[in-house]
Amino acid sequence: MKVAYLGPQGTFSEEAATRYFADKETEFWMFDSIPDVVEAIGECRVDKAIVPLENTIEGTINMTIDSLISYEQLFIEGEYILPVSLQLLANKGTIRSDIKEAWSISPILTQCRKYIRSHHMKSVQYDSSASAAKAMQLSGRTDVAAIGPRSLASLLNLDILERDIQDNPDNQTRFIIVGNDRLRDQETKKTMFVITPGQDQPGLLSAILNIFAALSINLSWIESRPTTTKLGVYRFFLEANQMCSLETVNKAVTILETLGHDVRIIGRYQ
Amino acid sequence: MKVAYLGPQGTFSEEAATRYFADKETEFWMFDSIPDVVEAIGECRVDKAIVPLENTIEGTINMTIDSLISYEQLFIEGEYILPVSLQLLANKGTIRSDIKEAWSISPILTQCRKYIRSHHMKSVQYDSSASAAKAMQLSGRTDVAAIGPRSLASLLNLDILERDIQDNPDNQTRFIIVGNDRLRDQETKKTMFVITPGQDQPGLLSAILNIFAALSINLSWIESRPTTTKLGVYRFFLEANQMCSLETVNKAVTILETLGHDVRIIGRYQ
Repeated sequence: MKVAYLGPQGTFSEEAATRYFADKETEFWMFDSIPDVVEAIGECRVDKAIVPLENTIEGTINMTIDSLISYEQLFIEGEYILPVSLQLLANKGTIRSDIKEAWSISPILTQCRKYIRSHHMKSVQYDSSASAAKAMQLSGRTDVAAIGPRSLASLLNLDILERDIQDNPDNQTRFIIVGNDRLRDQETKKTMFVITPGQDQPGLLSAILNIFAALSINLSWIESRPTTTKLGVYRFFLEANQMCSLETVNKAVTILETLGHDVRIIGRYQ
Repeated sequence: MKVAYLGPQGTFSEEAATRYFADKETEFWMFDSIPDVVEAIGECRVDKAIVPLENTIEGTINMTIDSLISYEQLFIEGEYILPVSLQLLANKGTIRSDIKEAWSISPILTQCRKYIRSHHMKSVQYDSSASAAKAMQLSGRTDVAAIGPRSLASLLNLDILERDIQDNPDNQTRFIIVGNDRLRDQETKKTMFVITPGQDQPGLLSAILNIFAALSINLSWIESRPTTTKLGVYRFFLEANQMCSLETVNKAVTILETLGHDVRIIGRYQ
């Protein structure tokens, strides 16, 4: 089985991918960006993809959900929650008090913002934590540090100057597993709805949510994303919790479509 | 008056700042990141700040709303909508068909994703469109292009190889003007609420939105952001449209607080 994830080597996506697909005979394919990962599964060049959906501090990874809805047949089949522990990595011989700059990808710098500020470092953005660490290694500098997962330390032979520097000790990232099969079994599961409202009107979202309340569907996650046509026009991603039967899902779809909204089910998972 | 915005020179934030504060005697201060701009106004080192809130394609700028709520007294006083036209910029002598890479800040690359892909370019991220254009200029390369506002072409003496390359021709960014005065006048205006639910329960958001519906408050914008304590626990940003009187706002606050939710009004503006 071919599995796509966001590379390069040594990222949290790789950690999630190898842990989730640990027991299976898997050939891993790395891609440069989240849209590229989703495109690979959307065009059936791989069998599954694993991408980050939300993080405790960052919130929803918009690039993931925006990419997902570009392909009609894509379906979320599973989820995996990874604890995110961030380390201060440096070239051998670096002394922490000499560090003037922190290098990493933007979401990781956000997750360590308080730490970076309290140590008077300057944030410098890279494409990934791995590319930041590699650039640091190539530079040979001992006045900068990279921030990333522990795996980068062994991969690039770097020192870990400090562990768990993320602002929130309970930092986690939720990944989703995406495939091309619509698994229509009857089990109770989490369900992801995408609703594009038919017409903007006062109390629109409230009216939509009341349908879910009327069917006793508990929503565990909600996100609004622009339809990209006009400022202020949004579609909604709604996740029903794990107690949702297929029968109830179908009722919700029938009612919402009758009210003139476009509804897509883009995932059933546990 | 001192006004903070996201630099460097030649960004859309600068364009919004200089247009909005055009008629006033203004001293502009540039900062390196959105959190730094908000911190400047939060610590009263400037009199006003202008920051992007949402874009047609990107959606909400999470960094802006996450930064805003770090300072209790900050208040949104106004908004400004800027049309976002993106240009393909290159060093003199560059031929478009030679271009292999597009350099810019991540949101701009997202806004031109289809264009970049259809021309088989590779996206390379920089801190800002201005720093991408400067790096390109320094490199002297004629096989790469920067993507950014028109102002960068004159600022750095670059060629505009193609105009309006954003995927959506109606691309706009909404900026907000932030100050330290809670303007408590009686006029009808837009109002921004931040609601941190007291306790998670089924149908929570639906119940909150029903309060607004009961008071005939039409919500024009809604965003959920993590409280950063636990995965899946969110606070809500709700914007009531321009017909909202202070009396109605106060009623909503009273009811929501009675129900056990934490409510903050972080803006009244037109």
